[in-house]
Amino acid sequence: MKKKPLVIVKLGGSAITAKDDSRPEVNAANLERLAGEISEALKGNKFSLFIVHGAGPFGHVPAKKYELNSGLKNAEQVIGVSETHQSMEELNYAVVGTLRKFGIPAIAFQPSVGGILKNGKLIKFSLEVIEKMLEIGLVPVSYGDVLLDLDKGVSILSGDHLVMYLADKLKADRVILVADVPGIFNSDPKKNKDAKIIKELSRNSIHLIKEIGSAKGTDVTGGMKGKLDELLRLADRDIESEIISGFVPGDLKRTLRGERGIGTIIKKDS
Amino acid sequence: MKKKPLVIVKLGGSAITAKDDSRPEVNAANLERLAGEISEALKGNKFSLFIVHGAGPFGHVPAKKYELNSGLKNAEQVIGVSETHQSMEELNYAVVGTLRKFGIPAIAFQPSVGGILKNGKLIKFSLEVIEKMLEIGLVPVSYGDVLLDLDKGVSILSGDHLVMYLADKLKADRVILVADVPGIFNSDPKKNKDAKIIKELSRNSIHLIKEIGSAKGTDVTGGMKGKLDELLRLADRDIESEIISGFVPGDLKRTLRGERGIGTIIKKDS
Repeated sequence: MKKKPLVIVKLGGSAITAKDDSRPEVNAANLERLAGEISEALKGNKFSLFIVHGAGPFGHVPAKKYELNSGLKNAEQVIGVSETHQSMEELNYAVVGTLRKFGIPAIAFQPSVGGILKNGKLIKFSLEVIEKMLEIGLVPVSYGDVLLDLDKGVSILSGDHLVMYLADKLKADRVILVADVPGIFNSDPKKNKDAKIIKELSRNSIHLIKEIGSAKGTDVTGGMKGKLDELLRLADRDIESEIISGFVPGDLKRTLRGERGIGTIIKKDS
Repeated sequence: MKKKPLVIVKLGGSAITAKDDSRPEVNAANLERLAGEISEALKGNKFSLFIVHGAGPFGHVPAKKYELNSGLKNAEQVIGVSETHQSMEELNYAVVGTLRKFGIPAIAFQPSVGGILKNGKLIKFSLEVIEKMLEIGLVPVSYGDVLLDLDKGVSILSGDHLVMYLADKLKADRVILVADVPGIFNSDPKKNKDAKIIKELSRNSIHLIKEIGSAKGTDVTGGMKGKLDELLRLADRDIESEIISGFVPGDLKRTLRGERGIGTIIKKDS
C-alpha cells in the first residue's frame, strides 16, 4: 500500500483559545470553524494528517506559575507538572472532541508519554505509534506539554518544536501553521498601513525578516522569529511550510486542499 | 540515590464508576475516599506509586459497540477507536483530578501513546518515561485503552494486563488490586453464607479456586479467573499481589502502609 502524503497542521494557541487572565477558555466558535474546514478537506482521503495545537493560557499560565521551564528545583514544582499537564489535556480534550464532532477520527496524543527532552530538545518520541495510527486513518492530535528532561528534570515542549521534530522525522510533505496573522509582513502592519504579506521566504530573502524583527512588531514576536528559524531549517531539508491565518474563513481548507501561497511560504532557495 | 520500593495499585472499574446503561458515570464518592486514603498513605514518602484504573462502562460500552477487540475490519471502527479513547480519557481525567485534589502529584499516562500490542499482548511500553516520572515523585495514572496491534490493527489493552506487564518489567515490590469484592472466597458467597475469604493463594493451593470457578459465582467471574492466572505468573517471578475491597474504608490505606493479609494475598509457594 502506497503511503499517502503526510500533512502536519499546527493550530496556534491564539487561534483556538480566548485570552482570559482568570480562567483559560477555548475559542469554541473559531475551533469549530477550523474543524469544519479540516473535515471538508479530508474528504477524498488524499492525505494523512497529524495535528499539533498550541497552549494559549492553558499551558503558559501554570507553566509560568511553577517556573517549569527553568528546570526542576523543588517538590512544589512536581504538583505544577501535574497541574500544567492536566490543563493542557483539558484543551486537547476540547480540540479532539470538536474534530470528532465533524466526523474526523481524531485521537489525543499525549507528548509527555511518548517524548523525552534533553536540555529542552526532543531526543525521543513515539514515532512508530504515530506511523501506525496514520496508517489506519486516525488523526493524532498532540500539543505543547511539560516533559521529562534528562538535563533539567522537566522542561517545556512547545507545540512548534514538536511540529518541526515530527516534520523532520516523519518526512512530512507539508507543514501548515495556523496563526493569528495571515503570514509574515514586510513591515509592522501596526505602524505601516502599506505593510504587505511576504509571499515566499527562503534563506536568500531572510534579510526582509531581519528588518521586521528589528521593528518589534506584534506580528513578529520573539515566538514568530524563533518559529521562522526552525522553519528555515526544515526548508533546508526540503520540507515546505506555510504560515496562514486562523481567522480568515476558507484559508485552512483551501491550503489543505493543495492551494499554495495564501499566506507566507517558507521554502528552500531554488 | 536509592530507589524507593515501587507499588502498583489497580483501581478496578467497578470501584470507581457507577453502572449506568445510558451514560457512564464516575462513582465520585468512592473515588474521593480512595484518593484520600492514597494521599494519607503517601505521607512519609516511603514508596513510589503507579496507578492503573479500569474502564467500567466508559470503556466497555464503546469498545463493544465498535467490536474493537476483534480487530480492525472497517473504517467505521476508526471512529470507534477515537470515541473509546476519548471516553477513557474522560474517566482518567476525573481520576487524576481527584487524586490531585488530595495533594497527590498525579499525571495522566495515555497507554495508547506508549504501548503497542501484538495479538492482544503488550510488546512495547514507555518504560523509560515511567521510571523518570517515578524518580521525580510523580504518580502516573494509566488505564485500559484501545491500542494499536501489530496483528489485529487495534485491540483492547485491559487495565489488568497493563498492571501485570508493568509489575514484571519495572520489578514492582507489591501489586494491590482494589476490587468490588474483599478478596477471593472459598465458595460462592451468594450461595453459601459461610463462604470465607482465602487469606493466601499460591500454585499449591490453586485447587481451591477451581472449585469456585466451577461454581460460577459473581465473585469469580471469567475476569477474576484470568486475573488470578496472571497474578500467579507474577508470583512465580516473586512479585506478591493482594486483592482487597474498594468499598471497605481504611483497607487501601492500611494495605499501602504495609499491612498484609487484609484481602487475599497471591504469592509464590514457600
